Amino acid sequence: MTYCVGIKVNNGLVFCSDSRTNAGIDQVNVYKKMYTFGAPGQSQYCILASGNLATTQGVINQIKKDIDSSAALNLLTMPSMEDATEYIGQISLNQQSKTGGGPAFQSNFIVGGQVAGQEHQLMMIYPEGNYISATELTSFLQIGESKYGKPILDRIINPDTNLQTCALCALVSMDSTLKSNLSVGPPIDIQFYHADSLEMGEYFHFDENHEYLRQIHAVWNEKLVDAFLQLPALEISNKPTITPIATNLQK
Amino acid sequence: MTYCVGIKVNNGLVFCSDSRTNAGIDQVNVYKKMYTFGAPGQSQYCILASGNLATTQGVINQIKKDIDSSAALNLLTMPSMEDATEYIGQISLNQQSKTGGGPAFQSNFIVGGQVAGQEHQLMMIYPEGNYISATELTSFLQIGESKYGKPILDRIINPDTNLQTCALCALVSMDSTLKSNLSVGPPIDIQFYHADSLEMGEYFHFDENHEYLRQIHAVWNEKLVDAFLQLPALEISNKPTITPIATNLQK
Repeated sequence: MTYCVGIKVNNGLVFCSDSRTNAGIDQVNVYKKMYTFGAPGQSQYCILASGNLATTQGVINQIKKDIDSSAALNLLTMPSMEDATEYIGQISLNQQSKTGGGPAFQSNFIVGGQVAGQEHQLMMIYPEGNYISATELTSFLQIGESKYGKPILDRIINPDTNLQTCALCALVSMDSTLKSNLSVGPPIDIQFYHADSLEMGEYFHFDENHEYLRQIHAVWNEKLVDAFLQLPALEISNKPTITPIATNLQK
Repeated sequence: MTYCVGIKVNNGLVFCSDSRTNAGIDQVNVYKKMYTFGAPGQSQYCILASGNLATTQGVINQIKKDIDSSAALNLLTMPSMEDATEYIGQISLNQQSKTGGGPAFQSNFIVGGQVAGQEHQLMMIYPEGNYISATELTSFLQIGESKYGKPILDRIINPDTNLQTCALCALVSMDSTLKSNLSVGPPIDIQFYHADSLEMGEYFHFDENHEYLRQIHAVWNEKLVDAFLQLPALEISNKPTITPIATNLQK
């Protein structure tokens, strides 16, 4: 499995991905799931991938091949993020069709970046090749094992959140996912993109034993338990509401 | 959808369920998903249900019918929780076979309680009729939309947790699920079972506007954001690790 999240705010974009892949629980490997491409000053792309590893590697290789061979249609000649996203979606469909298709060969992608003269954008590509975009009302997109880490993103992220806070929130979201699901694992990659910079921003690579990741893990756990302990207690002796339990059968 | 959680600790059991059902997003209804049965001093059962509503209602009705008609095999004559669980699993299979079966007609159940002279127990019944039990190492079982609410349970619950804390944790787990998934909704039911009491304990019914539920929701959101703000910041100017990005292509 995989967990990747892309966040789009007014100041730019933040990408976060784990590195665990598995084909059955005894075939667990480490693969980076984050790829960046760009021509400084012209266009920048960060791609996160989940799903079938052969499909995602096939897609990334084809993107590279097209750039290397300066194909007429390649990622760096795309006139817009929308065109780029459709191009990647089409490559994904082509890769899947090589295997005969089916759910086992599907992949999802998050694509974020900017083309000169246009807004920075964040999209998610479905296995069917179509896509959705992040908007002001949906500041983040997730792929893979996304549910464990969604509540904290729902609470923290809005269009005005700064990139550092977005990255920290992505790490906390990742931490909750790591804690609850074995198929997601470090190293964790974080990539910043500052709006209108047209070059990739700061990149962080945290392996399992990285001090900052351990610190986040320990402090978040401690603060969360503290927060929980500050909640108003449920008083058993003073029941807030008791309704008759019509469905009860006490013989 | 549904979210139900059962918690087993040394002191007893806590059950929590939501009340939203939907068949498509324009057919949303409120159904209680928690049912209790028992003969005080002899045996006590609390059942939580998720999945196909016709199947779960059919199962609960059959359990009631068997008790009402004092059938040779009924929930209150079962010699152990294991027998009770197999009995419910068999009824579930019978109900599903009436429709021809298939994933759309499946249901999951959490069953907890105690039979006199035995330990209190917590089980989860799969649609196939088989079941698993909670142990010291797995203090809670969830059915339905379980992922959003799992991280807080992972952090708080252990066999020594008291029942009030378990109930509060279940409510927080429910709150995270409500926040992130529209198909789970109030009213929320909470049922206590104190070990060796052989009668059902406190029961709480929280509707949407219940002051305590609103308080938990507001305070948890506030404390969680506070906790987040206390995390060590990710210093952009002082990158912890930078590894070369081999997969980057900057033309």
